[in-house]
Amino acid sequence: MFEEKISELSLATPASFIRAILKTTESSEVISFAGGLPNPISFPKEEIKESTNRVIDEYGSKVFQYSLTAGLRELREYIAEHLNETQGMDVTPDEIIVTTGSQQALDLIGKVFINPGDRIIMEEPAYLGAIQAFSQYRPEMCAITLESDGMDMEKLEEALKESKAKFIYTVPNFQNPSGLTYSGEKRETLHRLSRQYNCILIEDDPYGDLKFDGNPYGYISKGEFEGSILLGTFSKTVTPGMRSGFMVIRNEELRLRINTAKEAADLHSNVFSQYILWDYLTHNDVQQHILKIRELYRKQSNAMIRAMESEFPETVSFTRPEGGMFIWATLPENMIAFELFEKARQENVVFVPGNPFYIDGRAANTMRLNYTNCDEETITEGIRRLAKLIKM
Amino acid sequence: MFEEKISELSLATPASFIRAILKTTESSEVISFAGGLPNPISFPKEEIKESTNRVIDEYGSKVFQYSLTAGLRELREYIAEHLNETQGMDVTPDEIIVTTGSQQALDLIGKVFINPGDRIIMEEPAYLGAIQAFSQYRPEMCAITLESDGMDMEKLEEALKESKAKFIYTVPNFQNPSGLTYSGEKRETLHRLSRQYNCILIEDDPYGDLKFDGNPYGYISKGEFEGSILLGTFSKTVTPGMRSGFMVIRNEELRLRINTAKEAADLHSNVFSQYILWDYLTHNDVQQHILKIRELYRKQSNAMIRAMESEFPETVSFTRPEGGMFIWATLPENMIAFELFEKARQENVVFVPGNPFYIDGRAANTMRLNYTNCDEETITEGIRRLAKLIKM
Repeated sequence: MFEEKISELSLATPASFIRAILKTTESSEVISFAGGLPNPISFPKEEIKESTNRVIDEYGSKVFQYSLTAGLRELREYIAEHLNETQGMDVTPDEIIVTTGSQQALDLIGKVFINPGDRIIMEEPAYLGAIQAFSQYRPEMCAITLESDGMDMEKLEEALKESKAKFIYTVPNFQNPSGLTYSGEKRETLHRLSRQYNCILIEDDPYGDLKFDGNPYGYISKGEFEGSILLGTFSKTVTPGMRSGFMVIRNEELRLRINTAKEAADLHSNVFSQYILWDYLTHNDVQQHILKIRELYRKQSNAMIRAMESEFPETVSFTRPEGGMFIWATLPENMIAFELFEKARQENVVFVPGNPFYIDGRAANTMRLNYTNCDEETITEGIRRLAKLIKM
Repeated sequence: MFEEKISELSLATPASFIRAILKTTESSEVISFAGGLPNPISFPKEEIKESTNRVIDEYGSKVFQYSLTAGLRELREYIAEHLNETQGMDVTPDEIIVTTGSQQALDLIGKVFINPGDRIIMEEPAYLGAIQAFSQYRPEMCAITLESDGMDMEKLEEALKESKAKFIYTVPNFQNPSGLTYSGEKRETLHRLSRQYNCILIEDDPYGDLKFDGNPYGYISKGEFEGSILLGTFSKTVTPGMRSGFMVIRNEELRLRINTAKEAADLHSNVFSQYILWDYLTHNDVQQHILKIRELYRKQSNAMIRAMESEFPETVSFTRPEGGMFIWATLPENMIAFELFEKARQENVVFVPGNPFYIDGRAANTMRLNYTNCDEETITEGIRRLAKLIKM
């Protein structure tokens, strides 16, 4: 009855396969390697409670009233200072826009840059939320293979030469879904090529703080050229429930465009949560908190790798992430991850088959495994069950 | 340098004139009739603090974790029950999608229904946030004059006959910007015409609860036909800072489309705030709270009307709202509200000139006046200053 009412934009939007899986696996008996959920023991519950009480007492009505589209000034000041201190950048609060999670940043980017048929450059495999957000605006998605040290730079340069691209989208650290990280050399090449071809470089870094050892990698471009757009989020280090992310946009025109698109999208992000988040970040030893999460995830990652090494046949290969939340496994060529998924569901263990992360749905024999939301024992048991099915 | 990068969609998006005004009038010396801000004394600060502490204690990590795109089940249950009790509807929680404020609902509607050139039907004058959100998707906006008792129904039927429209958008109660309310007769006609022409009817009702006397008006269609979409919000009765609104969509296909668009837009709305809001709504006498806001705004509205009656020349006419937040004034025909605005700003009093609410920018001699964010004395002083300038 209403089919004729639906827009081209809506028809072009795929529903998220992952969120569909998550709905069917809510039972507590299921071992889930499918989501990308932080470990709930990492949420700073008491500290957030204190911060809520404090900001209501100190700032009263401001915490409840309509606010600026770009976001709470104090929170933007904190973010700018933090980036400048830890990454040696020179960002000002005016160059930051607070977003309703990083997902909103992806949607705004799609809106502001993509006309139907425009070329954009993506990693392959790519982050599913970005594929979904950008697909709405019907670009020509040009997929560049992600090698163990980053995009295939020769293919990238060919693609940039061949036809003008609106932007390159990358998750350079512990990528979702592959767990892979760019090498220093490829970071430099990516930065250079973006400038050379005057192509906007979008660096999405949700996992950067979750590097298991040593100092986090910085943003590739450090916002050092006008076409640089950086995305960050508090979803993995504080809480995803508050949907708080940010964009750093150096170029004023681009920033105004994104700001107006955000105004039309939700006026501004939840300012009650922005106050609480800012208070939390400035009243607690956040670095210590993040170190604890890193240590937790390092152990969980190691547990999964150990289990895979001892249980999986040698025909299965997999990545060994330096941080973040995901391991990417490649099954023997004749094996179809979707079929394994159906069998695994019967055994109460789930993961995400790799196809949805490919723009053309190829790579039927790959799978994404999340290790952050189960304890070590559960991880070992889940991998054991999967191994049995793979060997069958 | 980046002009060529900007999409048609972004180029079609006007920045909000109102938000631009608000930025320039933040000084406390300015008497502002320009915004649409709730009176800050109406925010339930202590109750929200209690609710925050309670939900963190009782629900722990759930309050902080990723959640469902459609919104917190408990909050959707509350909304469904409330609508069914107060409006005699038969809505289920599954028919509700929680949105990041009503503004997000408008953006999602534009996304899911409008192809460039599609006809949509709007009131004239119309809500600016809707003009902005829909404009992005480049519809043919067909403006139907808003008379004192609702849209001109003859013109509406002509427009529906002339060419298929995707939807009709209306704010039937104490409309923004006009303060006008639909009569019972026009409500029935609007409902009948929507069904007859199989046109989606979007009823946006942010102010319904703020009726000064007697019971609130219900939704026109009560969601009684498949093409009915209802919008509601907690921004005017609890807090706008949490950006919490909702949509009621009866048709399953339309609901799935909106849900997928929301998934791509921000995954889900802030669940921390949804828990707090739900707890607040179920642990307090909200009806009593709303009655207090109504009484406050009734007095403030009366103060503005009294001041206008005694200070403005008879050549100025204005609406007398039954509720909500706005009065709409029409200046003598040769007077230009933008010029008055510039002079008024010098005298530290601001309002919104009427043009931006007209799709073609006509009606240069109209203005929108908000009375909810000043006390009675300030309202009287502001109107006095305006009157002087009008008489000059």
